Amino acid sequence: MSGSKPRVVALGGGHGLAATLSALRQITSDLTAIVTVADNGGSSGRLREEFSIYPPGDLRMALAALCADDEWGRSWAEIMQYRFESDGVLDGHAVGNLLLAALWNKGEDPVAGLDRVGSLLKVIGRVLPMSVEPLDIEATFTNSTGRFIVKGQVEVATAKGRLESLRLLPKNPTARPESLAAIDAADWIVMGPGSWFSSVLPHLMVPQQRDALVAAKAKKILILNLDSATENGPVINSGEYAGYTATEHIEILHTYAPDLRFDLIVADQSVVAGSDQLQRHLSSTGGELLIADLRDQRSLVHHDPKKLTSLFAHIAG
Amino acid sequence: MSGSKPRVVALGGGHGLAATLSALRQITSDLTAIVTVADNGGSSGRLREEFSIYPPGDLRMALAALCADDEWGRSWAEIMQYRFESDGVLDGHAVGNLLLAALWNKGEDPVAGLDRVGSLLKVIGRVLPMSVEPLDIEATFTNSTGRFIVKGQVEVATAKGRLESLRLLPKNPTARPESLAAIDAADWIVMGPGSWFSSVLPHLMVPQQRDALVAAKAKKILILNLDSATENGPVINSGEYAGYTATEHIEILHTYAPDLRFDLIVADQSVVAGSDQLQRHLSSTGGELLIADLRDQRSLVHHDPKKLTSLFAHIAG
Repeated sequence: MSGSKPRVVALGGGHGLAATLSALRQITSDLTAIVTVADNGGSSGRLREEFSIYPPGDLRMALAALCADDEWGRSWAEIMQYRFESDGVLDGHAVGNLLLAALWNKGEDPVAGLDRVGSLLKVIGRVLPMSVEPLDIEATFTNSTGRFIVKGQVEVATAKGRLESLRLLPKNPTARPESLAAIDAADWIVMGPGSWFSSVLPHLMVPQQRDALVAAKAKKILILNLDSATENGPVINSGEYAGYTATEHIEILHTYAPDLRFDLIVADQSVVAGSDQLQRHLSSTGGELLIADLRDQRSLVHHDPKKLTSLFAHIAG
Repeated sequence: MSGSKPRVVALGGGHGLAATLSALRQITSDLTAIVTVADNGGSSGRLREEFSIYPPGDLRMALAALCADDEWGRSWAEIMQYRFESDGVLDGHAVGNLLLAALWNKGEDPVAGLDRVGSLLKVIGRVLPMSVEPLDIEATFTNSTGRFIVKGQVEVATAKGRLESLRLLPKNPTARPESLAAIDAADWIVMGPGSWFSSVLPHLMVPQQRDALVAAKAKKILILNLDSATENGPVINSGEYAGYTATEHIEILHTYAPDLRFDLIVADQSVVAGSDQLQRHLSSTGGELLIADLRDQRSLVHHDPKKLTSLFAHIAG
């Protein structure tokens, strides 16, 4: 560790990563977010089509989560996230997406552009893309009516079926050297929570990044999604478990990175129903199971950044 | 004066105002820019049509000119001014225009939105619109072929002809109370340089603002445009004098504000050819004539902000 602050790398995308970053920034300022770049819908999809750039959405959310924690920083975070509402061509575009698109359109190296936005917004830490080029994501699912293929980040995240296979396009993308260096130097690596198929697993489908994660000497922490089941059985379909148990989530992850072992697997107390199964799984793969209350009592389907902060403070000792 | 720093109000629009602000900010941090809001073309025109907001362009240029004078501030100024280049719908939009449009689209009071952008960019001073609502500008000109009407900020600024009359639409717009308060409290008021018909005169066609300017106790400074003539006669048509002499510029201004008297009228040395006429004019209206070298030797058609800084330092004594 550098001094008493851990060097932390968090991998993911979307709201899950934003919640993790909001918590980790309370623990350390030496923080690197590595973010999925496979969105093809909405504002990101339109900008990607107009400029041949990374889809900015997930990167923007990470930057907004790392804005300074004072009035000025919160004001920037809010405006970065703000989406235009009109009957015209700007409707739906997030301001932060446009800011990133402008810097990339200017011809800056994408990481230099991200670093520049980071500096303009005085963010804590650094935000990096998970590959050198924009990606697409495609998955084959099966359900009672047969097999079907879906393409797109949101479409894969919300498909109703059993995952048969997941693909990044182009296949085996090249990692950014800055991401590999951050993983190599990390004290902690945090994966999850997030849409498992579209925000978590893709990080293990970038071969150099997967190898770097396996080889890293860091303490590796996996944060499982909130279960949509209560003790009386499943009552909420939050979409994030998509019919899989927590143990199956870990097993699917290992099919994409068989050699990746986590030192700590964190589950919300709602997963307690399946914790015996989880515990048995971990006794074969190694790793400690930590069960905590992590649910945001207002949204019910998201992790509470304050509870995650307590979790990370506990892990930091 | 507040301490040793003068409270300064600068009125105008476009590049002329940006040059004045770049100079004035070196002299004082108590600086208010009051800006024309009658543009209807380009990025501003399109945003105005999509959102029913002020045309942001001239306001954005003023904000960019007031960004902090360090690496961070210059980086923001550059990105605020950057225009997208694409074959798509964002082509030509300036980033700063989109930022202003977003805050106004969010439903903030336009001046609160401007103050918020000022705070996000940590600008020196404050930028205000010259009226409570967006305006259009229309002028009647005559030339050898007869009389013609042009509408639009750029169109009026670049029309080739003699001005017969100038109109704001809607007529007699209401001033912003913040602008009136700033004028009332000012130690200095600076008008010009800038496109005379589209950036300078419109400020005198807002009745409350004109009355406030007349009544103000401030030292009133008028900066004339660069002459396009040399001692050997006119050689460059920069568009800014549009066939009028410097004295005629002052006379036209007085037709819109007969009671407005300037304490100091500043002319570039290129106006020296007409300075006898100017001097005679001033002997009847009062006011001191100051002739200085103000031309940017690279652009030739703009004032040099460094030379303007020396001018203001001289005036501040």
